[in-house]
Amino acid sequence: MQLSRKADYALRAVMHFAGMPKGKLASIGTVAKAQKIPREFLAKILKDLTWAGILVSYQGVTGGYRLSRPARDISFLDVIEAMEGPIALNLCTQDSCECDHYPDCKMRDFWVKEEEHFKKMLSRANFGKYKAVYKK
Amino acid sequence: MQLSRKADYALRAVMHFAGMPKGKLASIGTVAKAQKIPREFLAKILKDLTWAGILVSYQGVTGGYRLSRPARDISFLDVIEAMEGPIALNLCTQDSCECDHYPDCKMRDFWVKEEEHFKKMLSRANFGKYKAVYKK
Repeated sequence: MQLSRKADYALRAVMHFAGMPKGKLASIGTVAKAQKIPREFLAKILKDLTWAGILVSYQGVTGGYRLSRPARDISFLDVIEAMEGPIALNLCTQDSCECDHYPDCKMRDFWVKEEEHFKKMLSRANFGKYKAVYKK
Repeated sequence: MQLSRKADYALRAVMHFAGMPKGKLASIGTVAKAQKIPREFLAKILKDLTWAGILVSYQGVTGGYRLSRPARDISFLDVIEAMEGPIALNLCTQDSCECDHYPDCKMRDFWVKEEEHFKKMLSRANFGKYKAVYKK
């Protein structure tokens, strides 16, 4: 049970945008180079982040991407769920659990509780706090 | 990021053994049926649990498996790591992290902290508490 490489790259990309001066755009190439993310993979990720309303895309030769809202209003949870879908630490935590032990399974309570904690921590971690710092 | 099906089945299997009378053995078939786990998959899982020292295997027609130690001394962490290897919530939490942001990456601190919490919760959850209850 590990964060996907895609979601990790997405967090790093958003961290990059969060550290940029307000209103400035960054291209795929710039972010790929700064964050050491394979360019083609990053292109797909930025598209998904735009689709999820976390980034805004500007077309054209002077185009690029920027955050859609203040960095402090974007959480790790927003970014991870945009990449992986809703967090579910175990198969059974979803409403669709049809296990034979349900609803008397004590283990499910454990996973539901841990998932709630984890989601709370991810929603508290915002990119106003986690931002890239660039050397001049 | 989700617990593997294999680890979830392993937890359920150990929960089954934890609920059995002391010293009694259970066969693969019995556990598979009671826990609704595909038999072939369970055979592999019980072998791995035995290899990890969580179960003891007895050969022969009256053979089967039982826990190697008291249920309260076996944790969720023991079982999950026996199936998936050491818990690592993100690639970067391992000692082998060679990311360009290391060691100044704030995000890594977040993941290390969450991983520590998660492992603590998993090690506290033991099968003295989480055990199957059988109807007579």
